[in-house]
Amino acid sequence: MPLAELPATTGLSLEALIQEMGRRAREASLRLSTLSTQDKNRVLESMAGALLERESAILEANAGDVQQAIGKGLSPALIERLRLDPARVAAMASGIRQVAALPDPVGEILAEWTRPNGLLIRKVRVPIGVIGIIYESRPNVTSDAASLCFKSGNATILRGGSEAFRSNGAIAEALSSGGCAAGMPEFAVQFVPVVSRETVTLLAHMDRYLDLIIPRGGKNLIQTVTAEARMPVIKHYDGICHVYVDSAADLAMACDLAVNAKCQKPGVCNAMETLLVHRDVAAAFCPLAAEALHKHGVELRGDDAFRSFVPSALAATEEDWSTEYLALVLSVRVVDSLEQAIDHINHYGSRHSDAIVTADPKAAQRFLAEVDSAAVFWNVSTRFNDGEEFGFGAEIGISTDKLHARGPMALPELTSYKYHILGSGQLK
Amino acid sequence: MPLAELPATTGLSLEALIQEMGRRAREASLRLSTLSTQDKNRVLESMAGALLERESAILEANAGDVQQAIGKGLSPALIERLRLDPARVAAMASGIRQVAALPDPVGEILAEWTRPNGLLIRKVRVPIGVIGIIYESRPNVTSDAASLCFKSGNATILRGGSEAFRSNGAIAEALSSGGCAAGMPEFAVQFVPVVSRETVTLLAHMDRYLDLIIPRGGKNLIQTVTAEARMPVIKHYDGICHVYVDSAADLAMACDLAVNAKCQKPGVCNAMETLLVHRDVAAAFCPLAAEALHKHGVELRGDDAFRSFVPSALAATEEDWSTEYLALVLSVRVVDSLEQAIDHINHYGSRHSDAIVTADPKAAQRFLAEVDSAAVFWNVSTRFNDGEEFGFGAEIGISTDKLHARGPMALPELTSYKYHILGSGQLK
Repeated sequence: MPLAELPATTGLSLEALIQEMGRRAREASLRLSTLSTQDKNRVLESMAGALLERESAILEANAGDVQQAIGKGLSPALIERLRLDPARVAAMASGIRQVAALPDPVGEILAEWTRPNGLLIRKVRVPIGVIGIIYESRPNVTSDAASLCFKSGNATILRGGSEAFRSNGAIAEALSSGGCAAGMPEFAVQFVPVVSRETVTLLAHMDRYLDLIIPRGGKNLIQTVTAEARMPVIKHYDGICHVYVDSAADLAMACDLAVNAKCQKPGVCNAMETLLVHRDVAAAFCPLAAEALHKHGVELRGDDAFRSFVPSALAATEEDWSTEYLALVLSVRVVDSLEQAIDHINHYGSRHSDAIVTADPKAAQRFLAEVDSAAVFWNVSTRFNDGEEFGFGAEIGISTDKLHARGPMALPELTSYKYHILGSGQLK
Repeated sequence: MPLAELPATTGLSLEALIQEMGRRAREASLRLSTLSTQDKNRVLESMAGALLERESAILEANAGDVQQAIGKGLSPALIERLRLDPARVAAMASGIRQVAALPDPVGEILAEWTRPNGLLIRKVRVPIGVIGIIYESRPNVTSDAASLCFKSGNATILRGGSEAFRSNGAIAEALSSGGCAAGMPEFAVQFVPVVSRETVTLLAHMDRYLDLIIPRGGKNLIQTVTAEARMPVIKHYDGICHVYVDSAADLAMACDLAVNAKCQKPGVCNAMETLLVHRDVAAAFCPLAAEALHKHGVELRGDDAFRSFVPSALAATEEDWSTEYLALVLSVRVVDSLEQAIDHINHYGSRHSDAIVTADPKAAQRFLAEVDSAAVFWNVSTRFNDGEEFGFGAEIGISTDKLHARGPMALPELTSYKYHILGSGQLK
């Protein structure tokens, strides 16, 4: 909704505007928490319909963003991320319908017990409240995030990047008016209607109204939000993911898993960035893996031991071990032991997704227990750290944090809980 | 452990010292996560024994703190909080033994399922990692927090207040040497061995090593930590708790509950600060409650309607509704409806503990659903928001946050989870 259309916000300072949005979101969140599943699904259906109905307005707004991006000389990859077409608008609408089809986590009784004094205690799943989403160029985040937050009963304040400002605004307006037409509380989905870096800081400081901030974007954005925020932040950070080929590995399986983990989609956070190979199988495995990876165009950067088996590989530097390439580049290290592999991962990794390939259950158990990452895999590719692959349906991201949500963050991770305590006048 | 005794820390800058403590804590945490329950309980037993053995050294250190506090003219209440005696040292040791007796949350399988492609996914409870505890005057926090964090497999960095510096140091030294003698990994429990405000900021910025900070103390401390922290913070903030006496309340029960909630222990966070009374029962209830509360020495501050029934009450100001008295003072407001009571609580409350007294299940259900607080009570006093009363055993505090831990924060809330994914080479 453009600023001018927000009743009683015209003429407000930026700070007052953000505060007013927060106050309204908090009010909306209290109403949202009591909506039935049926009510929420009807709203989501109406949001999806509104996106399709307003396709031409959305594409027009997007054309403005794309033109601006071209004028600014943005890279073709960034422009591609930004660009919408009828298929992408349809995909957003279908994403919202998929969220409607997911089970509603709110109201679930997580635990229930009776105390010796007769008190009945019930732990009940409830919405978090108000969630701020701070994101960068992809306009589809607007509808993905808003629909997931709404289904889990939360009010959302969306603050998108300047490159997609027009597109995000048009999408948010469709969601808001489509939603409200089907009974969504007013201000349940709000979009920050101003282009200004300052709004990030203003949101991050507003712990009075925001219960959670989720930054989605590059390292700089996440670091700024983390440093400024006074409320919980859930980060979806780097994925410096490893595959470790143990001395007891099935080498053909290891080769297939390495190719899958590196090459299936190299630009995502659960792709492998470093391959670790046990010394006992290095002579047999390294040339095999190098050949398979070369076929997929992967540039290899190895330590001395690896390069003794694969002379064409470049020399890896210390920096390589902590680099998320997000590209067809792979660092490879030969390790002396399972323990050294675990130490390497816990030191250089990002606690995201790490795999062991082995036929030895003891080695696997130790790896699963000692690698301190959100998802630890045995004879499976790191690419499976994903909400869909876990059976969760749509996810808002893969958390690299250890509190509240770790790994795929789907609808249940967008909720909190409260206790109901039922008694009959107990005083002790 | 005094700074000079920390190997290789002498001569470090404050920042380098804190970083080095963080690095060591992280290393210790990786070893801690694999200890068995039996190992951990043996360590806790040894910690408790070491506290008792070193009683005289602890009391001597404490005498130094008390003398300094008297010299600085601290209030008698603060000095009382600070003072240790043999009974208090014994209570700390017995607290550690109680923690040893609690079930170990680590390793619990929270969920397990198999995907259509054969992947077995297991969600397993694991320690959080490294927890920073920043606290003020009470020295018993040193042993309470360290033992709870240790039992849940976490490494701890303790940063106590300057008033209790000597006492905390002596207690931490006993815990650390007692623990290490029984196989605790070195540096699993560390105490910041320097008096400096700067250490709070240095810890709050050290997201590389600290997974969580828990501030325990006054509002200023919590606000500073919240504003500076780059890692999750779990706050145990104000308790502005309400009891709402509905039109369908059993007035004798309501009176008993109000007296219990206000008078049993007025200085704690789950004590009632505001009483709300439905207009339909105000004429009958207000004089009754006032008489009972006056007998306990409670000062009453009411709105005009309340004062029309209880003329001796002072006039409540707007500020009263958001004040945590922590004393025998109570604000009272007469409301027109259940809805107005809920709105009042959601507006002025601190999302801590709120109760309804009613014989009407519909009113109760609405109150339980719509009051946005950690614990919502029906015909029970707010005083029951407590780890012991919930059956959790010892708690590290009552969280007023909505993420990760809400309400009583006991051992399970000091853990995270990770996913184990077991496969057989699946590529899709």
